[in-house]
Amino acid sequence: MIVYFRTMRTKDEEKRAALFEATVKLVNEIGFVASSVSKIAKEAGVSPATIYVYYKNKEELLVSAYSNIKLDLSKAVLQDFDDTLPIRDILKKVWLNMFRYILENIEYFRFIQQFAHSPYGSMVDRESLEQHFVQIRNVLERGIEQKIIKNVDRHILSAFLYHPITFLTNPPSTREPFELSEENIETAFNLAWDAIKL
Amino acid sequence: MIVYFRTMRTKDEEKRAALFEATVKLVNEIGFVASSVSKIAKEAGVSPATIYVYYKNKEELLVSAYSNIKLDLSKAVLQDFDDTLPIRDILKKVWLNMFRYILENIEYFRFIQQFAHSPYGSMVDRESLEQHFVQIRNVLERGIEQKIIKNVDRHILSAFLYHPITFLTNPPSTREPFELSEENIETAFNLAWDAIKL
Repeated sequence: MIVYFRTMRTKDEEKRAALFEATVKLVNEIGFVASSVSKIAKEAGVSPATIYVYYKNKEELLVSAYSNIKLDLSKAVLQDFDDTLPIRDILKKVWLNMFRYILENIEYFRFIQQFAHSPYGSMVDRESLEQHFVQIRNVLERGIEQKIIKNVDRHILSAFLYHPITFLTNPPSTREPFELSEENIETAFNLAWDAIKL
Repeated sequence: MIVYFRTMRTKDEEKRAALFEATVKLVNEIGFVASSVSKIAKEAGVSPATIYVYYKNKEELLVSAYSNIKLDLSKAVLQDFDDTLPIRDILKKVWLNMFRYILENIEYFRFIQQFAHSPYGSMVDRESLEQHFVQIRNVLERGIEQKIIKNVDRHILSAFLYHPITFLTNPPSTREPFELSEENIETAFNLAWDAIKL
């Protein structure tokens, strides 16, 4: 259950939470196109009309689910964030937090991956979502200024700092299984660091 | 049009090619679940019965489309492969070839990405597909023996050597656009190399 919904809930919040879980489950099972408002309502155990009390349409429901997960993810990766540590140590903590979050919430992660590559991806309020991760971005910028991290396009840094996690936590079923031991996760961080450090 | 089908075609081959293209198009548009045999047949302009002349079922059709693209991709990445060059130069060539192939065939690439994360992924003949890429794997093994490349789990090497390409060629629509200049592609290879080199 996502942190966002972990507090004491009103009836409204309970319905929102049920709709959220139903959205993630259904989209992961049958995809965005087939996940209609009526199917999501059925999965959540509410009437289709109830969805429209909370969300204007299917798009808004999907965007809301995505935003909730991103907020939850940002809280998880920023756990024990300590800006006074050396940059490598800060990023290693972020890396381990991200690994743990994804492994514990693989369904949420599959949903946001799919969402981010769907046409709905362009409907999110990018700037406000990126604000949740601004502390991490600031660490990278500081690392670049201090000539610790390579001054290259930020997408390239992301491609090596975060994206390998996607592959390692969610390897294609066309490949042999991979053992995600603590040691392997640490080794992978060493490669990420070697990639981005100056 | 995929290399596999580029030669002079018999009528059979034409039908197979039409089914292949229809499968990729439909799956990318509406997903695996919704892509029924009858919809694929309609998209390809053949009767549903025709599909069963060539493929036992939907699964076989999907696996065949995936295998064709992987074969095509392997030919593209191995273009001008020269085993006598230094390992870094060989891998850079492979990297640039892969980038070019994906950019020129983004729809094929989206299909195999989706496929590899679907339940169909486990139905492929992994060993025979991996044979197409054995020369590249051998280069990595040689690099490890010669203490040029880190001796870590091969999935971790893949995560840094190939997987960032996935992100850079197909960035999520939730992010600002990224300029894939020649310079950026070369820079990204430098990061990949720094990640895997000893």
